[in-house]
Amino acid sequence: MKNSAILLISCPDQKGLNAAIHDFIYRANGNILHADEHLDPDRNLFLMRVEWDLASFAIDMREFGKHFQPVAERLHMHWRVALSSARPRIAIFVSKYDHCLADLLYRRQTGELACEIPLIISNHANAERWATFYNIPLHVIPVTKETKAEAEQRQLDLLRPHEIDLIVLARYMQVLSTDFIRQYPPHHIINIHHSFLPAFIGARPHQQAFDRGVKLIGATSHYVTEVLDDGPIIEQDVVRISHRDTVEDLIQKGRDLETIVLSRAVRWHIQNRILLYGNKTVIFD
Amino acid sequence: MKNSAILLISCPDQKGLNAAIHDFIYRANGNILHADEHLDPDRNLFLMRVEWDLASFAIDMREFGKHFQPVAERLHMHWRVALSSARPRIAIFVSKYDHCLADLLYRRQTGELACEIPLIISNHANAERWATFYNIPLHVIPVTKETKAEAEQRQLDLLRPHEIDLIVLARYMQVLSTDFIRQYPPHHIINIHHSFLPAFIGARPHQQAFDRGVKLIGATSHYVTEVLDDGPIIEQDVVRISHRDTVEDLIQKGRDLETIVLSRAVRWHIQNRILLYGNKTVIFD
Amino acid sequence: MKNSAILLISCPDQKGLNAAIHDFIYRANGNILHADEHLDPDRNLFLMRVEWDLASFAIDMREFGKHFQPVAERLHMHWRVALSSARPRIAIFVSKYDHCLADLLYRRQTGELACEIPLIISNHANAERWATFYNIPLHVIPVTKETKAEAEQRQLDLLRPHEIDLIVLARYMQVLSTDFIRQYPPHHIINIHHSFLPAFIGARPHQQAFDRGVKLIGATSHYVTEVLDDGPIIEQDVVRISHRDTVEDLIQKGRDLETIVLSRAVRWHIQNRILLYGNKTVIFD
Amino acid sequence: MKNSAILLISCPDQKGLNAAIHDFIYRANGNILHADEHLDPDRNLFLMRVEWDLASFAIDMREFGKHFQPVAERLHMHWRVALSSARPRIAIFVSKYDHCLADLLYRRQTGELACEIPLIISNHANAERWATFYNIPLHVIPVTKETKAEAEQRQLDLLRPHEIDLIVLARYMQVLSTDFIRQYPPHHIINIHHSFLPAFIGARPHQQAFDRGVKLIGATSHYVTEVLDDGPIIEQDVVRISHRDTVEDLIQKGRDLETIVLSRAVRWHIQNRILLYGNKTVIFD
Repeated sequence: MKNSAILLISCPDQKGLNAAIHDFIYRANGNILHADEHLDPDRNLFLMRVEWDLASFAIDMREFGKHFQPVAERLHMHWRVALSSARPRIAIFVSKYDHCLADLLYRRQTGELACEIPLIISNHANAERWATFYNIPLHVIPVTKETKAEAEQRQLDLLRPHEIDLIVLARYMQVLSTDFIRQYPPHHIINIHHSFLPAFIGARPHQQAFDRGVKLIGATSHYVTEVLDDGPIIEQDVVRISHRDTVEDLIQKGRDLETIVLSRAVRWHIQNRILLYGNKTVIFD
Repeated sequence: MKNSAILLISCPDQKGLNAAIHDFIYRANGNILHADEHLDPDRNLFLMRVEWDLASFAIDMREFGKHFQPVAERLHMHWRVALSSARPRIAIFVSKYDHCLADLLYRRQTGELACEIPLIISNHANAERWATFYNIPLHVIPVTKETKAEAEQRQLDLLRPHEIDLIVLARYMQVLSTDFIRQYPPHHIINIHHSFLPAFIGARPHQQAFDRGVKLIGATSHYVTEVLDDGPIIEQDVVRISHRDTVEDLIQKGRDLETIVLSRAVRWHIQNRILLYGNKTVIFD
Repeated sequence: MKNSAILLISCPDQKGLNAAIHDFIYRANGNILHADEHLDPDRNLFLMRVEWDLASFAIDMREFGKHFQPVAERLHMHWRVALSSARPRIAIFVSKYDHCLADLLYRRQTGELACEIPLIISNHANAERWATFYNIPLHVIPVTKETKAEAEQRQLDLLRPHEIDLIVLARYMQVLSTDFIRQYPPHHIINIHHSFLPAFIGARPHQQAFDRGVKLIGATSHYVTEVLDDGPIIEQDVVRISHRDTVEDLIQKGRDLETIVLSRAVRWHIQNRILLYGNKTVIFD
Repeated sequence: MKNSAILLISCPDQKGLNAAIHDFIYRANGNILHADEHLDPDRNLFLMRVEWDLASFAIDMREFGKHFQPVAERLHMHWRVALSSARPRIAIFVSKYDHCLADLLYRRQTGELACEIPLIISNHANAERWATFYNIPLHVIPVTKETKAEAEQRQLDLLRPHEIDLIVLARYMQVLSTDFIRQYPPHHIINIHHSFLPAFIGARPHQQAFDRGVKLIGATSHYVTEVLDDGPIIEQDVVRISHRDTVEDLIQKGRDLETIVLSRAVRWHIQNRILLYGNKTVIFD
């Protein structure tokens, strides 16, 4: 397995940025596996992802910050470093439709998603067979209008001891409250919406798409913010439909889209390939 | 060249519809080339397109209505008949961007679009080279807020003697007034919108798409109704973009989409492949 | 659930075909739900699929042949009739890679695939967890060059009592012998090949694609004939790759393609939407 | 307009490569606009494209080689440098089908293709209207089996004084001889093949695709080598077809594919985004 470090940087653009970063890694005897960057001229913003082999790297990664901080300060960088060997801890939220849940668990098992999934939370009982199959604890917490605040408190209590790095809403049909969202740093919750956002925001997008008579339906994975269906988009895809397709056909065709579009987002997040700027994402693939 | 008749029917569903229609054509010695239908169970609506060879057809097509009307009345049909040899008369409206205009004229010349184009109307002068190249009269009518009513009157006066079957707005950047639209029967004006409707209705959709950070951009061809960008959708397609793409790149990528999506709509309209129901289209391809 | 009959016809084209078929159904009081047809002018071949509601149909479907045969003979038809309520009996063959198996079983459970799966046959043991999860008998029959004939005999013995309507090779990595294939009527075995056929016939198509440097990889579902990877193609799709993708990445991206392309083929087969002519398929969707 | 330099490098991978390159540019006061790289671990090959602003760059680009050569030698680089302001000189070869020709000339005029096109060579006369419209010299040189050697000699004589950087075969239906190909350095001739290579190599690929019954047709742009249809692939795309499509429909649908797939290849070549390794391309987009 790859034993590498990934450094993600955003800072004001200026001459010598690349040289400074590459020089730092070279002096510590790191062999670069991949480097990619993006320059947003409107914002004068420089975004970078660089990955290097740790085999002969001279710096103890536990002390990376101490060594890199002087460079970062001089160039006014926001940065974070991650290890490819780290396996993020992911909680999956799901409701009645279990196709995204089943898909994510399968991809974890094949190795496509290098993560831990310490728990699944659902407001329905039917996730149980998958929880059992993959041997992952499931917590069923029904949610009604009246019990929502209390239910969310129970969810937070369950999540806390697991030190969750990411919550994935895998067709979780409840809108998270602002209070819940604020318990996590920004960009720690990913949702799948079953439309090509910003078309068909809100409830029952397949019915909306059917009523409008569109010729393609889509799915969108995005980070959750306090504004419904408005967070930074990570991935989208579409599939062609025709007048022969009923709403039920759209739901069926949508399932394949949703599993693919959500799993890409989760994989890129795990692999530290996503950088945010404004309300948008850069995907360093 | 194919010498065939196309019959388009919509009516309440009932037993024996197919039998009655096919029996009528068979008794008149017509050989069916293609038949397709769609049943909308929610509306109990039957929609059909049937095309037959006229080689040995016993009915003079000028008198088709007289013969078919009894069948149509008995089954409460809305219907119309068209000849594949007929070449619809199309007026193209265009503004500054000429890629759709150039594309439509090229496709007419290759034979892909079997139509006449007796005139082009533009509010800019730069369509002139294409008008000259393809030897089609161009009328340049500038439009400002103040002169819009008068300009539209001039357009209508120019169109009238040509007995236009279809107006194609090939990136015509003016919104047609309700008064203008009402001069033509419904579904006689096709527009290309440079987004995946209903996302990014209105002005500057590429800028809107860029700002929202979508991962695909689209184009939509639709019939024009009195509500902006809300008419029945004929065709849509999308292309992938990334964070590397500027608004200018979106415009460039959009050009290919727009020419393809608009030309498909015009071709299907010419070939009598589009049936309307509610605010939606059936494409009999 | 829909209670309908589907009639599939192929015959030489001639006037009155449609009229005769629709008249037959109408006289027996059948309400047509959907009719589609295709005319191949090169072969003068007429292909048709018609589906009607059985609610008030006057003919006992067990005696349909007796009533329809005079029409069929007069018009020289090959035909077969099927009931939408019938659930075809499918055997799945699988080897080490289990993604198509897991996918097909999931789709059967959601109702997308209306079929029975009385047994799974594998030359590896690792299908067992899925067989257990979905409660389907699994037979593990290892295959080597030396034991192949004997193994195939065992497979045939296992299949016989189940009166299998279709064998699905869901990434079964053994080439079936001609002897085996001849035990079943034509077009009773569906395979998924992990390339865009006819590119990359044979073994290790992802490696072949990688070596050739293509920019898209594909998957193809097809009926099995005695010539390897040469049977009638049912469905194909592709996904974009780049120089960043290793062979392992192609395998991972291929998985999503393969499940989708195979499941569409199986669904269309179950729904009696596929008609064969020459070495090609018509899909009546 | 952008005034930048692009450096393309391939060399054995080793530590410090990135640092050395970025340090060189930084010391000469260059501001990097974009850097991308690819590491092929199987070949231990490092490939890089870096682009920087020349506004304040301290090195006279006419003497770039003198300054960079010591770095290049130390690290065993193959390299070349290009200016974004340079407009490559392209000759277009075309036969009877003119859609790619018309498309390339249109894109040059919109600015999408920043190049000069000093001449068009055709073995048919019907390119004349486009040559006239865009005011580019056309040379009509008929080719028969007997006159091929002589015709190619005339072509070479015509090309020589124009110091052509790239030949684009825009549906030129003659196979270039090995002698002709060897007159140009490798990767100076781009062809469009109207299939998804390596499927349907050789003549009449649409007929081949029709006969095989594929569900998608493709187009492939590639560099020309001495082996027919075997050179490094630059770009591919596909479009869905059905049993309704005749060979003529495939040809029509293919036209849109071919213009898009060829124009992308030409644009990437012009923008120095293509690096070769083995028989494959890296596209730095």
